[in-house]
Amino acid sequence: MTAHAVRTGVWFIGARGSVATTATVGCAAVAAGLHPATGMATETPPFAGSGLPALASLVFGGHDTLDCPLPKRAEALAAGGVLPHGLPLAVPAETAAAEAEIRTGGPLPGDTRTDDELITAFAADITDFTRRHGLARTVVVNVASTEPAPAPGALRLPTSSLYAAAALRAGCPYANFTPSTGLRGPRLEEAAEAAGLPYAGRDGKTGQTLLRSVLAPMFVQRALPVRAWSGTNLLGGGDGAALADPAAAAAKNAGKERVLADTLGAVPEGEVHIDDVPAMGDWKTAWDHIAFDGFLGARMTLQTTWQGCDSALAAPLVLDLARLLARAHETGLTGPRPELGFYFKDPDGGPAGLPEQYAALLGFAERLRAAR
Amino acid sequence: MTAHAVRTGVWFIGARGSVATTATVGCAAVAAGLHPATGMATETPPFAGSGLPALASLVFGGHDTLDCPLPKRAEALAAGGVLPHGLPLAVPAETAAAEAEIRTGGPLPGDTRTDDELITAFAADITDFTRRHGLARTVVVNVASTEPAPAPGALRLPTSSLYAAAALRAGCPYANFTPSTGLRGPRLEEAAEAAGLPYAGRDGKTGQTLLRSVLAPMFVQRALPVRAWSGTNLLGGGDGAALADPAAAAAKNAGKERVLADTLGAVPEGEVHIDDVPAMGDWKTAWDHIAFDGFLGARMTLQTTWQGCDSALAAPLVLDLARLLARAHETGLTGPRPELGFYFKDPDGGPAGLPEQYAALLGFAERLRAAR
Amino acid sequence: MTAHAVRTGVWFIGARGSVATTATVGCAAVAAGLHPATGMATETPPFAGSGLPALASLVFGGHDTLDCPLPKRAEALAAGGVLPHGLPLAVPAETAAAEAEIRTGGPLPGDTRTDDELITAFAADITDFTRRHGLARTVVVNVASTEPAPAPGALRLPTSSLYAAAALRAGCPYANFTPSTGLRGPRLEEAAEAAGLPYAGRDGKTGQTLLRSVLAPMFVQRALPVRAWSGTNLLGGGDGAALADPAAAAAKNAGKERVLADTLGAVPEGEVHIDDVPAMGDWKTAWDHIAFDGFLGARMTLQTTWQGCDSALAAPLVLDLARLLARAHETGLTGPRPELGFYFKDPDGGPAGLPEQYAALLGFAERLRAAR
Amino acid sequence: MTAHAVRTGVWFIGARGSVATTATVGCAAVAAGLHPATGMATETPPFAGSGLPALASLVFGGHDTLDCPLPKRAEALAAGGVLPHGLPLAVPAETAAAEAEIRTGGPLPGDTRTDDELITAFAADITDFTRRHGLARTVVVNVASTEPAPAPGALRLPTSSLYAAAALRAGCPYANFTPSTGLRGPRLEEAAEAAGLPYAGRDGKTGQTLLRSVLAPMFVQRALPVRAWSGTNLLGGGDGAALADPAAAAAKNAGKERVLADTLGAVPEGEVHIDDVPAMGDWKTAWDHIAFDGFLGARMTLQTTWQGCDSALAAPLVLDLARLLARAHETGLTGPRPELGFYFKDPDGGPAGLPEQYAALLGFAERLRAAR
Repeated sequence: MTAHAVRTGVWFIGARGSVATTATVGCAAVAAGLHPATGMATETPPFAGSGLPALASLVFGGHDTLDCPLPKRAEALAAGGVLPHGLPLAVPAETAAAEAEIRTGGPLPGDTRTDDELITAFAADITDFTRRHGLARTVVVNVASTEPAPAPGALRLPTSSLYAAAALRAGCPYANFTPSTGLRGPRLEEAAEAAGLPYAGRDGKTGQTLLRSVLAPMFVQRALPVRAWSGTNLLGGGDGAALADPAAAAAKNAGKERVLADTLGAVPEGEVHIDDVPAMGDWKTAWDHIAFDGFLGARMTLQTTWQGCDSALAAPLVLDLARLLARAHETGLTGPRPELGFYFKDPDGGPAGLPEQYAALLGFAERLRAAR
Repeated sequence: MTAHAVRTGVWFIGARGSVATTATVGCAAVAAGLHPATGMATETPPFAGSGLPALASLVFGGHDTLDCPLPKRAEALAAGGVLPHGLPLAVPAETAAAEAEIRTGGPLPGDTRTDDELITAFAADITDFTRRHGLARTVVVNVASTEPAPAPGALRLPTSSLYAAAALRAGCPYANFTPSTGLRGPRLEEAAEAAGLPYAGRDGKTGQTLLRSVLAPMFVQRALPVRAWSGTNLLGGGDGAALADPAAAAAKNAGKERVLADTLGAVPEGEVHIDDVPAMGDWKTAWDHIAFDGFLGARMTLQTTWQGCDSALAAPLVLDLARLLARAHETGLTGPRPELGFYFKDPDGGPAGLPEQYAALLGFAERLRAAR
Repeated sequence: MTAHAVRTGVWFIGARGSVATTATVGCAAVAAGLHPATGMATETPPFAGSGLPALASLVFGGHDTLDCPLPKRAEALAAGGVLPHGLPLAVPAETAAAEAEIRTGGPLPGDTRTDDELITAFAADITDFTRRHGLARTVVVNVASTEPAPAPGALRLPTSSLYAAAALRAGCPYANFTPSTGLRGPRLEEAAEAAGLPYAGRDGKTGQTLLRSVLAPMFVQRALPVRAWSGTNLLGGGDGAALADPAAAAAKNAGKERVLADTLGAVPEGEVHIDDVPAMGDWKTAWDHIAFDGFLGARMTLQTTWQGCDSALAAPLVLDLARLLARAHETGLTGPRPELGFYFKDPDGGPAGLPEQYAALLGFAERLRAAR
Repeated sequence: MTAHAVRTGVWFIGARGSVATTATVGCAAVAAGLHPATGMATETPPFAGSGLPALASLVFGGHDTLDCPLPKRAEALAAGGVLPHGLPLAVPAETAAAEAEIRTGGPLPGDTRTDDELITAFAADITDFTRRHGLARTVVVNVASTEPAPAPGALRLPTSSLYAAAALRAGCPYANFTPSTGLRGPRLEEAAEAAGLPYAGRDGKTGQTLLRSVLAPMFVQRALPVRAWSGTNLLGGGDGAALADPAAAAAKNAGKERVLADTLGAVPEGEVHIDDVPAMGDWKTAWDHIAFDGFLGARMTLQTTWQGCDSALAAPLVLDLARLLARAHETGLTGPRPELGFYFKDPDGGPAGLPEQYAALLGFAERLRAAR
């Protein structure tokens, strides 16, 4: 990796969370050649020449409401086996640099600022970051804990939407990797369209839903009717605790259900459970049970068990998104990017099955390349 | 379903086996409206107007070396839960008609006929069938038990190739749904090309390999390196017994391995076992264990357990193939049909992943429609 | 089987349910020599000579609030694969005889009878049955749908307790195969003690909990600490629908949890889900995920997937219980029978692990034999 | 832990292997209070007062034919996640002390010594170790790689038997934790009986077979006939490579099969596969599929997936055995110890199910306590 004159900012909402920490530390490790770029489609041959910012050119910062410094978070992730042992010590400068660019988010309890004041403050943080580092642009990525689905008729914007609005105000491309509201909702979608910025969401597709998005089309193509699709997720860590809140879990499950509805044409029987199991730490086990009909009504089943680390699954996707949106911005693309449905459970349009989404992504790479 | 002036023959090699019996009885049941056409892509909207022969217009016959009459086989399959109880009694005329068209195959022990004499005899059986029923054409489909991989330097043709040569001699399109040699091998491939007939193979993709053909591309697209892919198949019935022969299992496994090699770009670590478990009857359980790397080397796994009835999975595919090859023949298409890779573990060219194979199949439907 | 001078009644609460229907039809089939006594410990050698009533000597009747006649229920279970096809037709007399002895239970909507009036009416039905058939005794077994856990401070007895009180009033041994209240609760326990009758409960241990009761002791004996034990049950049928009621599910889960608490010494992390999946019919799939620690803190897991038919698992246990309690009554044993903990999730005392429960059951068989 | 006047030797055959390294380092860590004694039954309350040697009083040495020093092996195991990161550095003195007591085993290629000369040399190594350290006694434990089953009529003793004979000659209690021959075979069994030493074997029961020994009795007790029991083991590390040799795998599988035969009364259908999957490292995944009959012939299944680290499962059992045999020797017990069947796939007599084996072990603890 050589030094880059042009540098790009990545601003994480939830900058001290597991995903952001893994992405920040991992980007440094990959840029330094310590690890291959596993999990990053943008580092595979089809993306060569698409003009994406180099990993070594990314500068990290963000908002968070937690105090625990990034180097300490990284150590904790290494102790839990999410990061390789010793890795945080191998890239101390990058970790410290990112920590120095984390600003206090909000609203914290007792904060009396209005929505607009909060948006202004957040936008100022981002703009200041961009200016001080002389960045070509900064992409804002929401990787904060899932917030409960907003109550109907709520007067204030959800927190995720405050940050999204701040991104717009700061002129930044935006990606929502969580099921939280972000730019969704009538007021902000209009503003986003008007802002002339590219954006993408919602809810990163990292494990169980990723699988569903390849398996569901198989049943359709083979004309095998799915009668029931049931799932259970066991996970600990902060995500497990956040999703133990039924309202947050409901927000998450809506995305999972959408994948089945969009690919199967109807929602089959079956529920999805998300259990907080602190003993699992940052590791997740997802079990799916699919009951389907065969010829002449023969009853058949498929079961899948996925065991992975959510942060390690999410981090390379987050880096992909930041790079793709940065380049999209550079080439003048605006509005929702359905070409990025590959990354999301609940995408901004585009096809529902992973194969078609991958084809769309390759087409996007081609388009970015042509825009050079 | 109305009577059809034009009728099409389907000639099964292994006509009294589980797959042929299920296809014969099932076709009658679906044509009679007793069951939906579950598992048949050719009965889904994209194939409307492609000119495929109607299910009610198919006439069944075939070769076998076993004596057990088709109605009795059907009863045994119903007792084992493969066919719905009572179904054989619901379509007795069709079952009896097919039984009346089964001829003794070979070579049986003590048979002194040469390869050429056998081919001639088989071809005569098929031609006689076609002529007596006044069929527009007959498609020959190999659904016999897997034969051991031929020894290098063997002087005689494998039995499956005798039947395949008979199909050519009788002017019939041909599909090889088994891992047996069939038309593969230098002498027959030339003859097949010269015969001006459409054909397709090899080895129906019904369960574990079907899954692999959708899951392997997912790992590639997500840039997640697969380190090991291991599998175990438990099955009883005739298939279990046949595949307990290591040479037959080796023939089968070559196809399974090819799917991974073609989609992943390399064969990962891991073995595939096929266990004969008579207690399973015609039901199969396939367990796969996939070890893959995540970001920064995080070790992750996916396990799948597929429980189905192989005959019920295979029968609708076999009917699809017969219809598609009949129509291809009608429109003048000849040679290997890579567009039918959707159905095979070891296809005659074309893409390796199921999504691309499905796209190719849809293109084929379009081409057949346009040929009207 | 020879004719028996002495006959014993089995009175099912929920006599037209899946479990009672399977037990009634199955008892006839086994007594007639059509099927082996699979699943019945009481038909194994250790129980020979214990003086249990012969299967052929059992006479069936019961209460239910559903109208669907037993022969029709049996046909439906055969269609769903729970009973072998044709079995109901093989024992028509026994099925019809049991149907003739089913009385309307209650209270039905609009019923204005007091608790005491209902108990009196139910007891009269049972006594009348016993007298008309000249039975030595009748054992009452609750196999009705799980009722919601009673609200604290409820003034009326739960329905299951009305039936249990009727059993006491009619002088009958009683078994509660469900998680419903039955004889539990201060008033009825006293009455049960005073009645001088043997009884047993609660909540049949048929699948997931059966497994837990053998696996949990293994972890304890090997000094491997269980950190989390999570479970998901998928089931359709009437049981699935009943347990979709959170209050009913809570009653069920309390029993499951008790097994872990009693064997592990503490309740580990993890939840249990019971999902109503109508597509599963009477078949159940139970997935368990156990996270445990190894030497030096190595994280290990065990997963189990149990696929069975609840009615077929429950019916032989129900027949066992009826026979054991009948013989216990004959020998003068009274009060709760902890020796029958082998059959229950939430037993009336006794050890928690299955091995110890089996040893206790064998001891009981010995005691019954000695009482001859 | 206080200093102990009386110390006990533990002599590992295969002293630089994964199991011995884990046991050596882990014993030091547990004795130092760095980790709880997870997995050691001998550290649970029933064994208090049985007079077992304290962990801190154990002195380690052994034979091996590999050169890689123990501290380096420990580091490799920590890198693979078998040992906690940093643990080897926490107990450097104990690891170095054990390394200093490892002698070269054999016979190495080119070694011309006779069997008797080898036995004498090995025995001298052990005796020298015991004398120099002033140990009360030394227990020899075989944890070397599985050797192929000996060819019938072989003239020389298998290597495992040379070491076992050396233990006898040195007057040491002996445990064979592997499926290798060890003391089995007519000549050595006689010698063992004559030596007046306690010994135990064969083949440690750590994972899949442990499960089988608790599940098989459940099926028997519930009168549910097992029709087929199939299994697949995926493992890497040295054990995976050793067991990739069919002869070694056959030796291993014989023990697994014995557990089923002894508990079920007959060997059911089904095979067991052991696959060498280097990508799994020292971690093992074992999948079992059990097909069993329910009431009236309903077909049911249980599947189990066990994921663990074999070394971490084996090490505490090995320490248990060394302590129990040391104390047995002290109390004058001699000959095969069927009370230790809890630890073995192929024990020296005693019951087959784990619950009964555990009861026998508790009885042994009692006997050792009484011998004080």
